[in-house]
Amino acid sequence: MALRAAFRSKCVFSGLLSQRSSCSGHGRVCVSPVLAAQRRNNSTSPKIDVNFDQSTGVAVMSLQSPPVNSLSLDFLTELCISVEKLEMDKSCRGLIVTSSQPKVFSAGLDITEMYGKSPERCGEFWRAVQEMWLKLYGSNMITIAAINGSSPAGGCLMSLTCDYRIMADNPRFSIGLNETQLGIVAPFWFKDTMTNTVGHRNTEVALQLGLLYNPSEALKIGLVDQLVPEDQVLTTAKQNMTKWLAIPDHARAITKSMMRKPTIDKLASNREADIQHFVDFITKDSIQKSLGMYMEMLKKRTR
Amino acid sequence: MALRAAFRSKCVFSGLLSQRSSCSGHGRVCVSPVLAAQRRNNSTSPKIDVNFDQSTGVAVMSLQSPPVNSLSLDFLTELCISVEKLEMDKSCRGLIVTSSQPKVFSAGLDITEMYGKSPERCGEFWRAVQEMWLKLYGSNMITIAAINGSSPAGGCLMSLTCDYRIMADNPRFSIGLNETQLGIVAPFWFKDTMTNTVGHRNTEVALQLGLLYNPSEALKIGLVDQLVPEDQVLTTAKQNMTKWLAIPDHARAITKSMMRKPTIDKLASNREADIQHFVDFITKDSIQKSLGMYMEMLKKRTR
Amino acid sequence: MALRAAFRSKCVFSGLLSQRSSCSGHGRVCVSPVLAAQRRNNSTSPKIDVNFDQSTGVAVMSLQSPPVNSLSLDFLTELCISVEKLEMDKSCRGLIVTSSQPKVFSAGLDITEMYGKSPERCGEFWRAVQEMWLKLYGSNMITIAAINGSSPAGGCLMSLTCDYRIMADNPRFSIGLNETQLGIVAPFWFKDTMTNTVGHRNTEVALQLGLLYNPSEALKIGLVDQLVPEDQVLTTAKQNMTKWLAIPDHARAITKSMMRKPTIDKLASNREADIQHFVDFITKDSIQKSLGMYMEMLKKRTR
Repeated sequence: MALRAAFRSKCVFSGLLSQRSSCSGHGRVCVSPVLAAQRRNNSTSPKIDVNFDQSTGVAVMSLQSPPVNSLSLDFLTELCISVEKLEMDKSCRGLIVTSSQPKVFSAGLDITEMYGKSPERCGEFWRAVQEMWLKLYGSNMITIAAINGSSPAGGCLMSLTCDYRIMADNPRFSIGLNETQLGIVAPFWFKDTMTNTVGHRNTEVALQLGLLYNPSEALKIGLVDQLVPEDQVLTTAKQNMTKWLAIPDHARAITKSMMRKPTIDKLASNREADIQHFVDFITKDSIQKSLGMYMEMLKKRTR
Repeated sequence: MALRAAFRSKCVFSGLLSQRSSCSGHGRVCVSPVLAAQRRNNSTSPKIDVNFDQSTGVAVMSLQSPPVNSLSLDFLTELCISVEKLEMDKSCRGLIVTSSQPKVFSAGLDITEMYGKSPERCGEFWRAVQEMWLKLYGSNMITIAAINGSSPAGGCLMSLTCDYRIMADNPRFSIGLNETQLGIVAPFWFKDTMTNTVGHRNTEVALQLGLLYNPSEALKIGLVDQLVPEDQVLTTAKQNMTKWLAIPDHARAITKSMMRKPTIDKLASNREADIQHFVDFITKDSIQKSLGMYMEMLKKRTR
Repeated sequence: MALRAAFRSKCVFSGLLSQRSSCSGHGRVCVSPVLAAQRRNNSTSPKIDVNFDQSTGVAVMSLQSPPVNSLSLDFLTELCISVEKLEMDKSCRGLIVTSSQPKVFSAGLDITEMYGKSPERCGEFWRAVQEMWLKLYGSNMITIAAINGSSPAGGCLMSLTCDYRIMADNPRFSIGLNETQLGIVAPFWFKDTMTNTVGHRNTEVALQLGLLYNPSEALKIGLVDQLVPEDQVLTTAKQNMTKWLAIPDHARAITKSMMRKPTIDKLASNREADIQHFVDFITKDSIQKSLGMYMEMLKKRTR
């Protein structure tokens, strides 16, 4: 019920601070037996289901880490391995990213990865977040986000790495980089990705206020490209993909790289400093205290 | 009548060439006894009235330099001191900038500061213009412009430094960087601030043609964020401020700095060259002659 | 007839791969006797007609290289000479670029300049393409594109160099950088010019998909500034020119340079590398084979 309430409130999804189920003893979300059974043969892991259709050259990657596809270290590692495998498979030309979880695309970074952890572990986590962004934003494949639920913070970032964004037209869903609402700052490469998508001024307002947009608002500023009824998100993504597949891969991929390389290079050449910056920030007593209080609040809510 | 006509015409407000009253013996505008009496206790100067509300953490800075809030050296100096004081006061979180003068927010730079003055004095003036921009564009406070009148050139620049712009929906008011209309060129940091707000293409057209936009046009290209009836500009600014106050200051200010620092650094690391450039330009015989003719025309008009 | 069919299809105009007549023995398009007779006294070449009106200070440059104003080496050379002459004539303040050919502004680069040619010749050709862009994008004159027909690839680039774009409101016309549709990549300075005009995100999608926009779509994303009925394109361009002529040239030209110089400098300081890059690419066996097949297809079509 708390979760349901959470989904109703725009402010609840956190990105850097996302809710997770309580059944895990090691900071990881359990995969339900049902979901595990649903996994296809070619899935690469319990948290990411990959369904690659050789006939079309398109893979559908479904995020299936209950309850809200939090970006934990394990989740990110599996995601990166999945993307890398597809990237190296020349027969895979397009990738659709979507969610198997109801009402949420991804709630963003897993808060438990940042609370009470050693600096080494925090650094390892942050490197995985960077890796996810580098792999997706720099992918040679055509990437389309089929955003069939809310997508705050890290979830929004993942969407922004794609070439095209189709969102479910449900006013209860929201998307945005809402880090400041929680006292956190979106790193420069989150900011750069958003600026490339919606421009400097929209980004300045959105990041300062930590705005979460409903689908209509998101479409208006260009944060997503298209809205469709909830049950048509994936089929529309597949239809849209055919337009992209009509373009010779080589020319398209070089063009994509030309547009994104300066942004990617900025992080690629500053990864260690960016990790150190994150670790220094997140391990501060004041921030740890905030995180603790926030998690305590979430626990009470879910009771 | 000429003056009245001037206020009606879009082209009259000048920015670099702004009108001033004739009662001053030292190139400064007189403050009327009435206005002086209206000054509040916590005002810091005759030309700037600062009203800081401790209960909300929001200061309202009213520009009250008749007739048109020209940016003279004195005006700019007082403005910078006021902003600096508020900036250093940790209890002050938000700043609303508005005008006490009817029909005008600010007419821009004071022409008399650039006519018949020594290079040293011109340089001192330009340094003050830079300082105003650096202080406002780089402020850690939430800054909202309550634009209750026309705002050409330097007045537009001042508005553009703020985090949010609310303008009176009066079609006779205008806003824009209209320098080229007077044969003057907006410096690179005016251009950068405008580009950050309305994008490269809008800026290219606006600056080349020296466009002044009416409120509707300004809203359409994003030069202002919101239009309200003339008598609701300040109250709307205060209401809007509460949204910004809900965000933790620290995260918001770091985010703001991340967005603006590259633009600020460009001027900060080139201040002396920029001053020299201005002084060389403005002290040219041809420019001085133009300024003289323009002032002569204004004098005839006001008779 | 094949040509008519070509005009109907959005994908036919190529930019890098444009159709030409078959009456030429040396890779150049013939000028019909009629067109030659129509040339005015002050025209500078058979392929470019220049009509300079001393009374207004505005020159109209009509592209008249049948059938589709392909950008051949000769065409580009003449165009550059024409622009340079006008640039050096202080009495010429404005330049309108339009087409004398029906239904097409310019179909883009001439494919025959790139097929079966020596690396030296290819390099010479590419240097001429660069020169056209450098001269037009960096012109001190007011430049207005009167786009009275389709304008793919190189034709779109030429339009984008202008200060203002007026397009015929005919849904059968199209404009865009469609290079990827042909397996070719728009160079970085094509990309930069487009980004300066329609922003990063629109450019990312447009260049990856090689999109050709109809006039309404082009207006919506800002690729053109104004649509008018087909027979009013030139007169509207002349009317619009008067607005620009009202601004002092010196201030306008400095402002224009301030906006465009960083983009121009990027190519100006990398011309040789950019030429080498083009030559290496275009002389590849695989690319030559593609060009050959494409030309063969065009020949069959025109029979």
